[in-house]
Amino acid sequence: MSASVFDHPFLSGLLGDDQVAAFFSAEAELKAMLDFEDALAAAEAEKGVIPEAAGKAIAEGIPSFRPDIQKLRHATARDGVVVPELVRQLRAAVGKPYADHVHFGATSQDVIDTGFALRIGRVLDILQERIDTLVERLGELDMRAGAVPLMAHTRMQAAIEVPASRKILSWREPLLRQRARLSAVRKEIAVLTFGGAAGTLDKLGAAGEQVTARMATRLGLGIVPRARHSERDGQAELADWLSLVTGSLGKMGADIALAAQSEIGEIRLKGGGGSSAMPHKVNPVGAEMLVTLARFNATLVSGMHQALVHENERSGAAWTLEWMLLPQMAMATGAALRTAIGLAGDIEFVRK
Amino acid sequence: MSASVFDHPFLSGLLGDDQVAAFFSAEAELKAMLDFEDALAAAEAEKGVIPEAAGKAIAEGIPSFRPDIQKLRHATARDGVVVPELVRQLRAAVGKPYADHVHFGATSQDVIDTGFALRIGRVLDILQERIDTLVERLGELDMRAGAVPLMAHTRMQAAIEVPASRKILSWREPLLRQRARLSAVRKEIAVLTFGGAAGTLDKLGAAGEQVTARMATRLGLGIVPRARHSERDGQAELADWLSLVTGSLGKMGADIALAAQSEIGEIRLKGGGGSSAMPHKVNPVGAEMLVTLARFNATLVSGMHQALVHENERSGAAWTLEWMLLPQMAMATGAALRTAIGLAGDIEFVRK
Amino acid sequence: MSASVFDHPFLSGLLGDDQVAAFFSAEAELKAMLDFEDALAAAEAEKGVIPEAAGKAIAEGIPSFRPDIQKLRHATARDGVVVPELVRQLRAAVGKPYADHVHFGATSQDVIDTGFALRIGRVLDILQERIDTLVERLGELDMRAGAVPLMAHTRMQAAIEVPASRKILSWREPLLRQRARLSAVRKEIAVLTFGGAAGTLDKLGAAGEQVTARMATRLGLGIVPRARHSERDGQAELADWLSLVTGSLGKMGADIALAAQSEIGEIRLKGGGGSSAMPHKVNPVGAEMLVTLARFNATLVSGMHQALVHENERSGAAWTLEWMLLPQMAMATGAALRTAIGLAGDIEFVRK
Amino acid sequence: MSASVFDHPFLSGLLGDDQVAAFFSAEAELKAMLDFEDALAAAEAEKGVIPEAAGKAIAEGIPSFRPDIQKLRHATARDGVVVPELVRQLRAAVGKPYADHVHFGATSQDVIDTGFALRIGRVLDILQERIDTLVERLGELDMRAGAVPLMAHTRMQAAIEVPASRKILSWREPLLRQRARLSAVRKEIAVLTFGGAAGTLDKLGAAGEQVTARMATRLGLGIVPRARHSERDGQAELADWLSLVTGSLGKMGADIALAAQSEIGEIRLKGGGGSSAMPHKVNPVGAEMLVTLARFNATLVSGMHQALVHENERSGAAWTLEWMLLPQMAMATGAALRTAIGLAGDIEFVRK
Repeated sequence: MSASVFDHPFLSGLLGDDQVAAFFSAEAELKAMLDFEDALAAAEAEKGVIPEAAGKAIAEGIPSFRPDIQKLRHATARDGVVVPELVRQLRAAVGKPYADHVHFGATSQDVIDTGFALRIGRVLDILQERIDTLVERLGELDMRAGAVPLMAHTRMQAAIEVPASRKILSWREPLLRQRARLSAVRKEIAVLTFGGAAGTLDKLGAAGEQVTARMATRLGLGIVPRARHSERDGQAELADWLSLVTGSLGKMGADIALAAQSEIGEIRLKGGGGSSAMPHKVNPVGAEMLVTLARFNATLVSGMHQALVHENERSGAAWTLEWMLLPQMAMATGAALRTAIGLAGDIEFVRK
Repeated sequence: MSASVFDHPFLSGLLGDDQVAAFFSAEAELKAMLDFEDALAAAEAEKGVIPEAAGKAIAEGIPSFRPDIQKLRHATARDGVVVPELVRQLRAAVGKPYADHVHFGATSQDVIDTGFALRIGRVLDILQERIDTLVERLGELDMRAGAVPLMAHTRMQAAIEVPASRKILSWREPLLRQRARLSAVRKEIAVLTFGGAAGTLDKLGAAGEQVTARMATRLGLGIVPRARHSERDGQAELADWLSLVTGSLGKMGADIALAAQSEIGEIRLKGGGGSSAMPHKVNPVGAEMLVTLARFNATLVSGMHQALVHENERSGAAWTLEWMLLPQMAMATGAALRTAIGLAGDIEFVRK
Repeated sequence: MSASVFDHPFLSGLLGDDQVAAFFSAEAELKAMLDFEDALAAAEAEKGVIPEAAGKAIAEGIPSFRPDIQKLRHATARDGVVVPELVRQLRAAVGKPYADHVHFGATSQDVIDTGFALRIGRVLDILQERIDTLVERLGELDMRAGAVPLMAHTRMQAAIEVPASRKILSWREPLLRQRARLSAVRKEIAVLTFGGAAGTLDKLGAAGEQVTARMATRLGLGIVPRARHSERDGQAELADWLSLVTGSLGKMGADIALAAQSEIGEIRLKGGGGSSAMPHKVNPVGAEMLVTLARFNATLVSGMHQALVHENERSGAAWTLEWMLLPQMAMATGAALRTAIGLAGDIEFVRK
Repeated sequence: MSASVFDHPFLSGLLGDDQVAAFFSAEAELKAMLDFEDALAAAEAEKGVIPEAAGKAIAEGIPSFRPDIQKLRHATARDGVVVPELVRQLRAAVGKPYADHVHFGATSQDVIDTGFALRIGRVLDILQERIDTLVERLGELDMRAGAVPLMAHTRMQAAIEVPASRKILSWREPLLRQRARLSAVRKEIAVLTFGGAAGTLDKLGAAGEQVTARMATRLGLGIVPRARHSERDGQAELADWLSLVTGSLGKMGADIALAAQSEIGEIRLKGGGGSSAMPHKVNPVGAEMLVTLARFNATLVSGMHQALVHENERSGAAWTLEWMLLPQMAMATGAALRTAIGLAGDIEFVRK
């Protein structure tokens, strides 16, 4: 199936991102959720919430556990979340007498939000590296061609001549700012979610805080004072950041497509796209895609802000909306950075 | 891969739609594009634009043609569209001396837009049938339980008692209006796109109009006076309609979730979703999903309106944005109707 | 105050529309609401729901009634709607013994939705006339200059030469389609809303239908079977249509700005905008504004679809959102049409 | 005129904000732009870019300068910006021989962006103070009533009992995070924009940097290395922050409206809104407005991200879109905070 360009057999070549996609596969998702269950059992055993033997049995059971995907699909359609059935299967795999110690004190949202946090942390690493690479490539472009005189255009009209360097700076510096913004974003999203049924860790008694701390360390995630089941500003802020990145790249794409117009020709692109009707054309496909991906994320970011209106202690409606939007936004950002890195190497400023 | 819930191994059980998805697979897409090339060759042969023997060779070559998907993927990444490489492969399959008669006078957008039109026409059939079914189910619900007295709520406060019938009408009648709107939508989207390089059918000379008419008949699509390569109101209007449908269902979902609240209990649902932490709960998952899908489409519809700003004779940037949004919107609408049909049978109004 | 460009002392010259604005003034709004009360009293008196003398007293009281705006403002802050206080003031003006017959059987939403319907009907007349004018101007432009050869551009690259006529058609024909769509839109929005507290006209007994019919005739509005207090597809469809119009004009604006680029110069504009730093420039301000207004409406349309999720018999949250979005969208559409009509006369295609 | 609720004679009582509005009046806007011209002249005179006497003449001319608003309106319609005509009028007021030293080396965007920065800095002060007040009020509410047991609801179903304190924390803590985010936002928006025609300060020669530093100090704004005429991440980030604030308050509003439902009654509100048809009702108007304002900003934020695609050295289209969105978003945030502060005092948790 391929309703989404990101999962599409051939459109993903244009708009997808294999490296980022690896973190949004069902396998990666299940793996991350099982990492949560593993860390939970280990921490609870360590702190005496569940028997040590239970912790051991769960730790040994998880590596060889293979969930039945069809059953997960069927149950998700009923429950709205995969976790009840996943836990049921995992309990069956761990077996008596420790089955009931699996997932003890946790709720579905703990597993899913933490599973997302684990994966998005890695995705942000990739995006950060690409920003670094792109900043470097643009720096090289500046060194190589920054002195070429270009016409500045304001309000779509020729204004005065400026060195290419200025245009490159207007692409590069926003990236430096997005990079600087990233650590604040990461701090609020790459965190452990652990609150239990209504966010109070009611089943753990006094051990709640210690188990939380232990799990966070084990999973390499930040600790927040309470599970943010219904406080989604971390997710919205992540969406904002992703769209700031693609927006800045969209500006770069628009500039390149304009400068590469046949009649202007201030930029020549190596390796543009071909046409089925006019083989002579060299289309600025990568530049256009940067605009497309920017407008895509600028569209989706709105839904992530709508999802801030998260009623009560858990909103199925608002939470599920995040699942429909955030992975795509991350994919679009990955694709845009990948494309921009390619473009930066393909740009040749033409001295007129 | 599964960045999208619609293509996701287990989330698609909740949010996907197998029947609609069949029309957004790469196979269906390639099939529809080859249907275009087949109809083109047949019509051009019939009208003497290409040799009769060429028409025959192409007609015979297409059924057994199996495109190399990896090459399509690679080329799409470069060209921004799959068509140049698809045509190259098809020409190779047809072979000399008729290879060059394949795709004669057409452009990539003709193939892709028409391929979409062919598939969306079928999808609209499915959605229309589901609306019919849902209208019927709500009619049955009204017959069965319309007399049960419910509390009307305005501004989230109890107002006066009304029969359940009124609430059912407020879900059912918008669907009747959406159904009435559909024929106008279909008329502008289920059309043949055939314009050639710059929309002028310049290579076909006087035969352009006749070839167009013949193709449209063969493909079962409407004829429009000129290819609407850069006029995208038909696409935006389709998006509007999809979101009107999900929006009306979102209202139904919100009403059900509110009436099913534990403290209100005016609606009891058969078969609600389970919780991993609180097995006693019956969650109104389907109702919540109607809200989620409504907000999803309400988000994406904005991007389809942004894509109306389609510069010049073809905008790679604006056009590609449609590919990222429309299939998902159709999937979400399919999923919402499927869910609502299920819900309509699960609702029991509780006499208090 | 002027947080909005439409109400702004100087920006409204650029982005506003005096003619449309007249229907969104508080005066026009109050006038339309009083027209509702007047029609209500007349119909109720005629059908014997209230005494004939009450109808007469109300009909005589309204023309000289001057609401206290400060009190309306204060009460709206508390009640969320202006109607309770407006009715209170009107009752005081009508005086004993007929005061209580004012607004009999109606609810706030009846007054406000009908008041909007009355005004938007007039606004749609204006927009329709402007579409007619613009279609005519583009027809004249085609006659005058349609034969001038222009370069077609696909994917931001020169493709093949086409007559200017083709570009003009791509601006003109979507307008013909929007015009054709308008009657369906109007049919669902220019309607009487009259349902009473929970939409059931419970206080009118058997006379409800007759009073409704009488009011609708008197006000020149369509009749719908039930008040659509919570079914908002008519409002969303109106927003869609407004954004389809601005979107099509945005395409025209983008084309003009691109063709008027200094290096391309296929279009020369009479009367472009000046620059404070570079007096020699002629900026394609009108063309840019068409893009701006298109993107503005494409942004806001999303909120109107979110407002379809209208819970229960009346949602203060969703309904109020409409008030924040629809008038602005109508203003933007008025401004865009006004601007496009001006531009159509300013365009000179340059033979190269 | 009143197409916007924020400028509306009576709706502004509900949805407006007098204190914030003061910074979006045309008077405040003109004042801020003249502050820019004043600081520019002073700095240029000090650094020898213009004669000292010119600096003095301009400094003396500005306080008594009264622009002709009708002429500004007319010229803005033509130029797309108010600055050329404003400068023309100011030059006439300053008179010979110093007229030409007014606005020397600056461009329209310098004046407008800096004028906005000056005002938004003050607006952010107000919003920050209100966040402080609201945090305090919620703290008091927690002290007063945090121990009252409430039912937690997940997925719209009763889950387990929790103290009211937890609900209050879920409203309060996001505000603490928004407050913490504010300084990063402020740093990128409350900055001087000064770049001249194409952002290069070409007319100032070596003095550019010194004049910039002097102006920034005088205006109390941050210095950035280059004018960010075409890099709009600061503006988008501001919009993100405004919508994060209203989104968090929207969650609070949704919770209150749900808890105040007649059948649930866990929250009782002092001073809810009245109804014209059902005088006995107490509507949770303030809570609903928080949801409305959240969805409003969540809608508009999308347009601010679309505006990141800012082509070339200045995009009239993208820049103007900011003017249509940002002031409204700031107003909505002001109104939401004002409303939430009121609500926090009106909430009474009901012990059941």
